[in-house]
Amino acid sequence: MTEQRGGVEAAEHGAAPVITFLSDYGLEDEFVGVCHGVIASLCPRARVIDLTHGVPRHDVRAGALILRTSLDYMPIGVHLAVVDPGVGSARRAVALRAADDRILVGPDNGVLAPAAGGAGGGVEAVDIGRSRYRLQPVSATFHGRDVFAPVAAHLAGGMSLPEVGEPVDPRGLVTIELQEARIDRASLVAHVMQVDRFGNVQLDARQEQARTAGVEPGRQVEIELASGAEVRAQVARTFADVEAGELLVYADANGWLTLAVGEGDAARSLGIAVNDTVRIRPA
Amino acid sequence: MTEQRGGVEAAEHGAAPVITFLSDYGLEDEFVGVCHGVIASLCPRARVIDLTHGVPRHDVRAGALILRTSLDYMPIGVHLAVVDPGVGSARRAVALRAADDRILVGPDNGVLAPAAGGAGGGVEAVDIGRSRYRLQPVSATFHGRDVFAPVAAHLAGGMSLPEVGEPVDPRGLVTIELQEARIDRASLVAHVMQVDRFGNVQLDARQEQARTAGVEPGRQVEIELASGAEVRAQVARTFADVEAGELLVYADANGWLTLAVGEGDAARSLGIAVNDTVRIRPA
Amino acid sequence: MTEQRGGVEAAEHGAAPVITFLSDYGLEDEFVGVCHGVIASLCPRARVIDLTHGVPRHDVRAGALILRTSLDYMPIGVHLAVVDPGVGSARRAVALRAADDRILVGPDNGVLAPAAGGAGGGVEAVDIGRSRYRLQPVSATFHGRDVFAPVAAHLAGGMSLPEVGEPVDPRGLVTIELQEARIDRASLVAHVMQVDRFGNVQLDARQEQARTAGVEPGRQVEIELASGAEVRAQVARTFADVEAGELLVYADANGWLTLAVGEGDAARSLGIAVNDTVRIRPA
Repeated sequence: MTEQRGGVEAAEHGAAPVITFLSDYGLEDEFVGVCHGVIASLCPRARVIDLTHGVPRHDVRAGALILRTSLDYMPIGVHLAVVDPGVGSARRAVALRAADDRILVGPDNGVLAPAAGGAGGGVEAVDIGRSRYRLQPVSATFHGRDVFAPVAAHLAGGMSLPEVGEPVDPRGLVTIELQEARIDRASLVAHVMQVDRFGNVQLDARQEQARTAGVEPGRQVEIELASGAEVRAQVARTFADVEAGELLVYADANGWLTLAVGEGDAARSLGIAVNDTVRIRPA
Repeated sequence: MTEQRGGVEAAEHGAAPVITFLSDYGLEDEFVGVCHGVIASLCPRARVIDLTHGVPRHDVRAGALILRTSLDYMPIGVHLAVVDPGVGSARRAVALRAADDRILVGPDNGVLAPAAGGAGGGVEAVDIGRSRYRLQPVSATFHGRDVFAPVAAHLAGGMSLPEVGEPVDPRGLVTIELQEARIDRASLVAHVMQVDRFGNVQLDARQEQARTAGVEPGRQVEIELASGAEVRAQVARTFADVEAGELLVYADANGWLTLAVGEGDAARSLGIAVNDTVRIRPA
Repeated sequence: MTEQRGGVEAAEHGAAPVITFLSDYGLEDEFVGVCHGVIASLCPRARVIDLTHGVPRHDVRAGALILRTSLDYMPIGVHLAVVDPGVGSARRAVALRAADDRILVGPDNGVLAPAAGGAGGGVEAVDIGRSRYRLQPVSATFHGRDVFAPVAAHLAGGMSLPEVGEPVDPRGLVTIELQEARIDRASLVAHVMQVDRFGNVQLDARQEQARTAGVEPGRQVEIELASGAEVRAQVARTFADVEAGELLVYADANGWLTLAVGEGDAARSLGIAVNDTVRIRPA
């Protein structure tokens, strides 16, 4: 994914510390606003950037992927990621400093590991599950408010990792498998990672891998869906290359192979869902 | 609700003034963004924290409850709350300073009263319905933009209450009934206050009250739904204590008794809606 | 639309530069958050105001209208508007300085033109499609991240237009038709521009035009819907003037004629959709 590094430079010295915030809390309830309040109370100088709160509920893999893909576009700062189906269980809560000086904060369930890898790997980590900076009493279900946000705020305010938790092995984070697309008998076998609000279907195949299987702009491909149905699509650079209603395959802005329909909703019209397997081969 | 005070300290001196903002405007339209623009125009230094804009339309009770429950986690500042079914009618518009120096701004329809109580009660109030700082011409339907946001901005900028409105009795705010759960023949009779995006069903019973009725972690309970159907549930500390698909009763992060299904949607699977009555007793 | 100028004064000198941001990206995905990250990386001092990201997908006309109507309430700054169905095609990307010193940034597809007109017309413009400040490599589908946000950030940071693009004729922007309501044989013939989340139906008729056709507060009107059905409504100042369930016609907070149902959803109950034509005449 190195090709997607966008030339964004580090923030100027003297600027407000940045906390980016990703979660599956959604914006219908006050969860996100309450975390903002906690951060503003503890580190008024911090600027919070909401990366997204629309991660599908409890989907650690989707959250990890978005964090990994987006982090290159964020200023160096504290990066809070709360997708936490195991809140209240024995899963660890951690803060980790990566080689590029980004600090990742969240549950140790895989949501942080790919981003840590992309940031050069962890060089220092602490378990914050019993941090002295938790809000008391700590609830059983809202560690975003009671553990992660306050620790992130203190780190943004300049505290060191050992001040907010107990040192642990920075290479010992729980990992998560992100990419599984493969080539099988001249077909690209890929899986649906996400469907965006426009019905575009993001696969776990990279542009380069697709090219190896002969899936490249200008060609037609056959796509075998999970249902067994076969459809034909145009490999294109962008929507503007096809007519309304036409099926296309393109590399999205982060280099992931994506199925879409010109001015339409590919997921709905093809009946595709997250985790479906699709097989793509040149027509 | 004092036990939920989270140890958040007051903002540092010299920090930007804070305006928190709660409404039922939603984020689909530009209403919230326009209010932000008005505030930034009139008080560029102010930092606006969106507490939530997902309050169900015109649900004054839900807005009041969220504001009351969340306020302890917000920095001391101006707290704007606009859930205003009576906009354009004779309902008053007010700004109120509470004993803890928080300033609440909104329609006088009950949305502010519980939060004012939680903040130590009102010590000073003004009617801002004819404030000289309204935007002219004042529309009949968008007082968030034309009355509440500009007044909040001027208060954040340092104006006193008498500068922005006409003094009124700070103890004369319209009140609203928030909690009605009661014990009836060894059952806890509670009502559904809110359903969150995960389908978790928040009741108007406090954890301590539930305990009085024998509803406490480790026990099984019978729940009689509004439909007359009976279901059995596990009283637990958190989701992690039950299996997927299992019904549980737990105290949420603010101490409210809540019904949920492990990795599921309790409201949908039980057919529960806001304002339903449920009866809970030890099995 | 001059009557809706709300008396908002220009931001104080020395305040942080402001970027307002409107798009059809929605908040479910990370698109908006990534653009915020890019801006914060390149111009840490800039304050970003999210005007709305709920513009219906690819609806340039709706985006243009919201930007035009809301701009008077925003501080003078850089105004980023990304509704871009032609991303990746030959459509131009532009930055334009208006007579009132606002700078508009976005695709040249009509989304900027009405706002530019409202801001006194363009006095200077540049084509930023090949700006040296784009993020490399530029994707085919996410120019918000790769072109518009970085250019907006540099402009907010103080760069001049010629530094970020190639000069073009500031009067040569692609325009868009916004208002079409007309009087035909004593009826007001109007079209549905938008439906808000409450089901209120905004028409393309101005309050003054409606008055010319005898549609004014206190009167009853007959409305012929696109289906041919006829309904009767009360012309009112605000919701508070009618009973629950009653149909009303009123001028919204920006002076647009609007159909609504007291405590109800007019679009749903009348079966009205965007672009429908309605005919309104005094009863």
